Amino acid sequence: MEEILRQQIEQIVPLTDDEFTQILTYFGERKFKKNQYLIQAGDYAPNDFFVTKGLLKSSFTDEHGKEHILQFAMENWWMSDPQAYHNSLKASLNVSCLEDTHTYFISLDNREKLCADWQKMEHFFRKKTQAGYVALQRRILSLMSQTAAERYTQFVQLYPQLLQRVPKALIASYLGVSRETLSRLFLH
Amino acid sequence: MEEILRQQIEQIVPLTDDEFTQILTYFGERKFKKNQYLIQAGDYAPNDFFVTKGLLKSSFTDEHGKEHILQFAMENWWMSDPQAYHNSLKASLNVSCLEDTHTYFISLDNREKLCADWQKMEHFFRKKTQAGYVALQRRILSLMSQTAAERYTQFVQLYPQLLQRVPKALIASYLGVSRETLSRLFLH
Repeated sequence: MEEILRQQIEQIVPLTDDEFTQILTYFGERKFKKNQYLIQAGDYAPNDFFVTKGLLKSSFTDEHGKEHILQFAMENWWMSDPQAYHNSLKASLNVSCLEDTHTYFISLDNREKLCADWQKMEHFFRKKTQAGYVALQRRILSLMSQTAAERYTQFVQLYPQLLQRVPKALIASYLGVSRETLSRLFLH
Repeated sequence: MEEILRQQIEQIVPLTDDEFTQILTYFGERKFKKNQYLIQAGDYAPNDFFVTKGLLKSSFTDEHGKEHILQFAMENWWMSDPQAYHNSLKASLNVSCLEDTHTYFISLDNREKLCADWQKMEHFFRKKTQAGYVALQRRILSLMSQTAAERYTQFVQLYPQLLQRVPKALIASYLGVSRETLSRLFLH
């Protein structure tokens, strides 16, 4: 499993075996069962999770009890409640498993230590965060300017694997469309 | 003007006079007039701009010719087309001036050199990008789960200065509400 984390880092910065062994000591390893929660709204959310196997969703439940899907994370993706994690606040999001999931996780303290000790890891996290920022901005543009059909087409192109693994109702929530609209789109 | 840039950096990493002088050499300085474009959709967008005076907007024009406001930037804020900038692609956004504007700007090449030469600047940009990521995620949650009235209230709380300086039609576009809805909210 640790090879997936190593490959993730090495997409941006090369590592020797010895370096990776040392970097790995900043991480913990944890398995979760399907439907189990990694983060619950109202609790602290001290870890950023890297998925090596399985599938997660993060969601926000509004005051009317409606769940809005913010993100999915499958193998090779990161997942946290970023606002809670980076500011040591209580979570506003729930993160739970759509499949049995294996993760490596890093606390904020360890992330900051790792970045201070290893400039290449500071570089890695800067680049990853920048890529995440660009993806979020694309999502905002999509929510503001695209029709349900356009959003669905973009989702299929960007994340064909998720389409196979995520229940349709959750994809509809992620896209901000009704389940009925999504069903209609599936028929085309 | 350069003091504003220095304060921006020193909110995260302390600098000596000599260090700031050296860091400043990686930046350029440029003034723009009201209504002038910093970035035009279809052109390359090689610079990230830091505003020391003035006010910018970034927007996306969809295929029906409708303009969607993505972001504003006043003093002490950064502005670019992040997707185009970080990936050396052509811009999909327009960035233009709502007021006469003074900026410091940094090219992607210089940003990468600066980060490689100065770990404290790599740290600075990592932290800034993380904060930006958190803000974008809050915006997505807002677009997905809040009513127009809730979005307007949040905007007023977060950005009281923008309310005074930005035309109401642009605030309506930023919030994803109609101008009529916004006018109604203003009356309360």
